[in-house]
Parts: sequence; structure tokens; C-alpha cells
Amino acid sequence: MRIVIQKYGGTSVGDLERIRNVATRVAGTYDAGSAVVVVISAMAGVTDNLIDMASEISQTPDRRELDVLLATGEQTTAALLAMTLQSMNYPAQSLLGHQAKVHTDCAFGNARILNIRTSRIKELVEQRKIVVVAGFQGCDINGNITTLGRGGSDTSAVAIAAALKADTCEIYTDVDGVYTADPNICPKARKLKTVSYDEMLNMASLGAKVLQIRSVGFAKKFDVPLHVRSSFNQEEGTMVVNEASGMESLVVTAVTQDKNQARITLKKVADQPGVAAKIFDPIAAEGIIVDMIIQNTRAAGKTDLTFTVPKAQFDRAMEIEKAVAAQIGAERVWGAKDIAKVSVIGMGMRNHSGVASVMFQTLAKNNINIILITTSEIRISCAIEEKYAELAVQELHSAFGLDRKD
Amino acid sequence: MRIVIQKYGGTSVGDLERIRNVATRVAGTYDAGSAVVVVISAMAGVTDNLIDMASEISQTPDRRELDVLLATGEQTTAALLAMTLQSMNYPAQSLLGHQAKVHTDCAFGNARILNIRTSRIKELVEQRKIVVVAGFQGCDINGNITTLGRGGSDTSAVAIAAALKADTCEIYTDVDGVYTADPNICPKARKLKTVSYDEMLNMASLGAKVLQIRSVGFAKKFDVPLHVRSSFNQEEGTMVVNEASGMESLVVTAVTQDKNQARITLKKVADQPGVAAKIFDPIAAEGIIVDMIIQNTRAAGKTDLTFTVPKAQFDRAMEIEKAVAAQIGAERVWGAKDIAKVSVIGMGMRNHSGVASVMFQTLAKNNINIILITTSEIRISCAIEEKYAELAVQELHSAFGLDRKD
Repeated sequence: MRIVIQKYGGTSVGDLERIRNVATRVAGTYDAGSAVVVVISAMAGVTDNLIDMASEISQTPDRRELDVLLATGEQTTAALLAMTLQSMNYPAQSLLGHQAKVHTDCAFGNARILNIRTSRIKELVEQRKIVVVAGFQGCDINGNITTLGRGGSDTSAVAIAAALKADTCEIYTDVDGVYTADPNICPKARKLKTVSYDEMLNMASLGAKVLQIRSVGFAKKFDVPLHVRSSFNQEEGTMVVNEASGMESLVVTAVTQDKNQARITLKKVADQPGVAAKIFDPIAAEGIIVDMIIQNTRAAGKTDLTFTVPKAQFDRAMEIEKAVAAQIGAERVWGAKDIAKVSVIGMGMRNHSGVASVMFQTLAKNNINIILITTSEIRISCAIEEKYAELAVQELHSAFGLDRKD
Repeated sequence: MRIVIQKYGGTSVGDLERIRNVATRVAGTYDAGSAVVVVISAMAGVTDNLIDMASEISQTPDRRELDVLLATGEQTTAALLAMTLQSMNYPAQSLLGHQAKVHTDCAFGNARILNIRTSRIKELVEQRKIVVVAGFQGCDINGNITTLGRGGSDTSAVAIAAALKADTCEIYTDVDGVYTADPNICPKARKLKTVSYDEMLNMASLGAKVLQIRSVGFAKKFDVPLHVRSSFNQEEGTMVVNEASGMESLVVTAVTQDKNQARITLKKVADQPGVAAKIFDPIAAEGIIVDMIIQNTRAAGKTDLTFTVPKAQFDRAMEIEKAVAAQIGAERVWGAKDIAKVSVIGMGMRNHSGVASVMFQTLAKNNINIILITTSEIRISCAIEEKYAELAVQELHSAFGLDRKD
């Protein structure tokens, strides 16, 4: 029997009427003869409300208890959906994380799935029941409730699909697929029919809006075909697959921007071994992730070093680097939050030269200065002034022939 | 180490400020050196809201899923209280029903506790942790979530107290104890220092407002001393104990009324063996509970038979009895919802004669007609016209010397 995993996000189950729509869709798949395992999120806004309530108690609420609290969100939706299916005379049953035997490590708030023992789910599926699993939650070895972090329901769905060797894992959301660029920024963006796991992983800023990035890594590892689509219409969405499976032949698949960037420059740093470690170790120790780094050699054994950090961690990083600068004798530390990162992504870049050149020329033609550059096998990213981010995305989207034809 | 169970009801944990008050009280007991296991209810109104939501989906929501839904109420409070205690630097940890190993039968919505394996609770207590148990919930042999029915948190608390052989089980609520009558009806009612399990069990209509009656039966069975008191002040409440433990020497301890009564009379029923079965079996089969029964013998082998049922089931019972009347040849069926039951209760009745006589005289003196009478070893109940219920309670309260002296 064909096994279909369907994951519904918070807006798809935002109220009882929408839950009813979801039930109708689930029932349709069930009636077509498939086994259906549904993974659901909390109703839109519920998780945020619970977090707000916890924040009223403490700025740093106990993480174990926060997970107990947050898990109620998915528990509520799972019960309501199972109830709705029952009221339509479909044999449905909810399973919470621990009942579905989603075993995780002990990292409350950001737990990783270790394994899923599928006996209970399989038993219900064999009884031709529709299984409704509360996403986002699991339990650790001591039976404590854990949660998987923002968007964790996607990971729940993919992990269950992998464990059940499901035929497909459908991710229902409020957008109808993955686009070549954010349509809000680039009106000519078009929906992709397929995208590879690797491209999706590189499209974090675009992709994270439709799919938790961690779940894509999981899907890649276990080769779970994902179908990202809207729960509000019947259109085909975007397949996220291994590149083997008949991809579109685009050199560049998508253009993204990421405004969550700030830059820090240390002026006139001694160009000596061990200096980089002194600069980056203290901020790594604080859990601040450095994205891009560039070093400009100057005269007299001195160099300028620029790097980027997430905007939220800019102040803390500046504080640390000022201390570092004093210690290593750098001339001064200078930083700004006015930058954005634009990226072009595509599997085709591995076999086509000239992508970087087109990107740099396009930016130059529009008088956009490139501050930093990083590349991976299938991505080129440039840090630019934030005010040019939208323009850069639109111009790159056109330059790489991604604009919608109509 | 002294082990104290503290149960807090829905109004006591109605908002974050009240939860903070509860935490302060718990912390006080902990600081005094006791081991504290807290059992909490859902925040006031939450359970009703969840039931309303389920009713929107179906008039008869799937009972298993309803329990999954309802269990979120206590889960939320347990997490919030544990979090609050943590924020005050007390080592607290929440346990859900299944984590506290509260094992029940499979009767969703009204499950009975079979046993509590206390290993987990004891382990935490031995680590000097404050354990916060989500009341009202347990799990069945298959790991399904079950709930214990209205007021089930009281039963959770008593069962945990019994399993841990706790020194005391404090039931915190929004009233400050058990009264000789409902103070809203009888302004001269006074708080009892002690009341026996048996009296409490017979005071259902009074007692149920402060304590789930089922939990009293449990407390009696395992001899768990209960202390019913208010969470809003520091006053001593009412001890519910075995009668041995120094009771007040009252003949009558309390006067109660119950307006949830309706009467049905079958006129001119043949006074033959088997007729009663024909009258009562069909309504018993519908789960309708008959409370009081009286039979007035008439002439010519005919008798009038009157009995009471809960008001909510009156219409259904009338329907059934009309069919029965036709079948057994009764003259007619007549019913009304205009009755109430007033009761006097007291352990002392076993050793004092004349209680019934005082009761009947008091009602007669006030021109209140007695429609039906039932008695138990420690209770006499009379069904009277509903409009006289308050008057009857006040007059009986005075007649048995229960009025407050001040």
C-alpha cells in the first residue's frame, strides 16, 4: 500500500474551519486507497502566545518546562483533527510525540531526533486508521517531552516518512511552492517544479519560509521525496528531490537575499599566525556564527579584516571585538548593520562557467558595490549595501533568465 | 521527611499572578523542610473552552481524542507552575499523568485510577525536588491519555497521597472549607473544623463544590487525611478524616439541598410482582439514575408509584415511562421538575434518636409538604416543593443548632 505523509503547517490548521478543510483533503487521500499519516503543527499564533506567557514568568524560562508548555500546541491540533475526521466517520487516531515513539536527544527546545520506533504507527496503519501525529515534539530517554525548534514539524514529518519508507512526504503550507526568488521582492519570480535538496539547503533565506532547513538535510540523508504545496488549493507545488530525478536544466535556480547580516571590520591587524584565532575564538565561544570573512592586505605587515554576523548578535560581537582589538593592537574596530547578502544558487553552476562573472557585471552595471564574496559549489553570495538588496535580486533574477514569461 | 500533597484548583491557578501566589505557598512548605508534591488543575475556564471547541466539531466528539485535548489544560498549568518555581530558584519539575505513572482503566472521560507507580515521583522527591503533577489525567495500559472526569484533580491528589503514604493532602480551593450549609442559601452557616469521610460522602451537593466526591471515597479507603482550605488566605480549613480522629460532637453536621431533581408518578399501577422491574429496567438501561422511590397503596390492588430522576434526564425518562405505562396498563404518567431534595447529615444520627422527628416537625411547622423520604445510616432526605428549598435549609439549620453564634 502506498504510504503518504502529509504535514500541515500552522496557518493550514489556523481555525476549526481550516482543520475541516485539512480533514477533507486527508480523507480524499485515504479514500484513494493510500495509508495516510498526518503530521500537524500548532494552530497559527499559538506557539508564540505560549512563549509570551512563559516570558512573563521569566526572561529565561526553564527549558524543560517550556517544552512541556509548547507541546500543548500540537497536542491540541492533533486531537481536534482526529476528532474532526472521526466526526466525518473516518477512523482516525492522534499520537503525541512520545506515543509515536519519536525519540530525541535531551536538548530541550532544539532536540534532534535519534530514532523513531514505528511499531505503534504501523499497527494503526495496518488497521487502516488515519494516524495524526503531533509534530514538533518527541521524548528523550527519560520520558521528558522535548521539542525540535522552530518549524520542527517539518522535521517530524520527514523523519516519520524516512522511518516508514513512505512513498511521498507532502508539506502543506500557505504558499504554493518554492519560487526562484521571494515574490514579494521580485514580482517576476516563478514557481519551481523541482528543486534539489542541495539547492534547497543553499536557499535557506528563501526556503526557510516554506520548509525548515534542517528537515531538508534529513530528507536528503534518507532520500525522502518532498512535495511542498498549498493547503488552500489543489495545484501541484514544488518537488524537492535528489538531483537525479529529472531536474529542470537551469544554471541558476534561484536568487535570494538575506538582510539578517551585520559587518564588523578590524583595521590594521598584524598579519601574523594566530591572530585570526584571537579574533574569532571569543565570538565562537559565545555561540555567534560568523558567515563571511574577507582580509585586505595593506602595507607594513598590517591587514584589514571584515566579517559578518547575524544582526541580533552584532552588539555583543562588537563588544567582544573591541576587547580583542585592544589586546592584539588593532587600530580600531568599525561595524555597521547596513548590509545584506544576495546569492545565486543552482546545481548547474558546477558545469557552467561564467556565473560569477555575470553576477559581478550585473551588480557593477547597477552601481552596486560588492563588500564581501563567498562561494560554494552551487552558490555565489555577495554582501552589498542593504538598500540595494531588492534591486540586486530583481536584476540578477533577470540576468540569469529566471523571469516569468507571461 | 514529612510528605505534603497540595492540590490547587482552577481558580487558584486562574492567571499568572495567582500561579505566583501558589508558587510562594508551595515554596513556604518546601522551605519548612517538607517534601512537596503539587497536583494542579487547568486554569479556571480552560476545560470548558476546550469542551466548547470540541462541541463545535461534533455533538459527540470522539472520547479518546477529547481526553487528549482536555489533558492540555493541566499540562499548561503544570509547566507554568514549575517554570514559576524555577524562576524563584526552587528546583521544580512537572510530571504529566503518564510520566507520573498514573495508570487508569480505558474509560475515556471518566477513567478510574488502577495504580500509581511512584518510582519517578519518589526519585525526584529524594533529589529534594518539588514535583508538580498535572492532575485529572492518567494513561491506560496502551499508553493512551485518559482523564478522570469533572474534578478529577482531587482524585489525582488523593491517589498520589495514598501511594506515597503522605502525611497530609491539602486541597486548595476558592472556598475556605466545608460548611454546615451552603452560605449562599443559609447565611448563618459556619465552617466545620472536621467532618468525616462518610458525612462528606453524604454531603454530595454541598461537598461537590469543594471536593470531588469520588476522591473522598478514595481518601476513606486509604485513610488519607484531607485538609480543605482556601488558597487566598492562611486560615485553617476543614479536615476530612476518619471519624475516630476527634470529631465535633454534633448530631447533625450539615444540611444540604439538591435542586437537580424531577419527579415522575405512575398512577394506578397493578400491584403485582414484576411490575417494578418493567418500570425501572428500561430507564436503568438508558443510564438514568433513579434516586428516591415511594409507593402509595390504593384500593383494588392498584398503587401509585413516584420516583425522582436528575432534571436533565426528565424528558427522556418521561418518554420511556409513557411507553411503559401503556404496556403495563397504568392509568397515567405525571411528572414535574418542581422538586428539590433537602437532607440532614451527621455521624451522630447513629446514636441519637429523634432526628427524623425533628426534621419532619420543622418542615410541617413551615407548611412544607414532604413528597418522598429516603434515609441512610447517617442521612435523612426529603423531597419537597422546589420553592421551599432555601427556607427548609435555613429552618433545619436552626432546628439542629448549627447556626453561627456571632
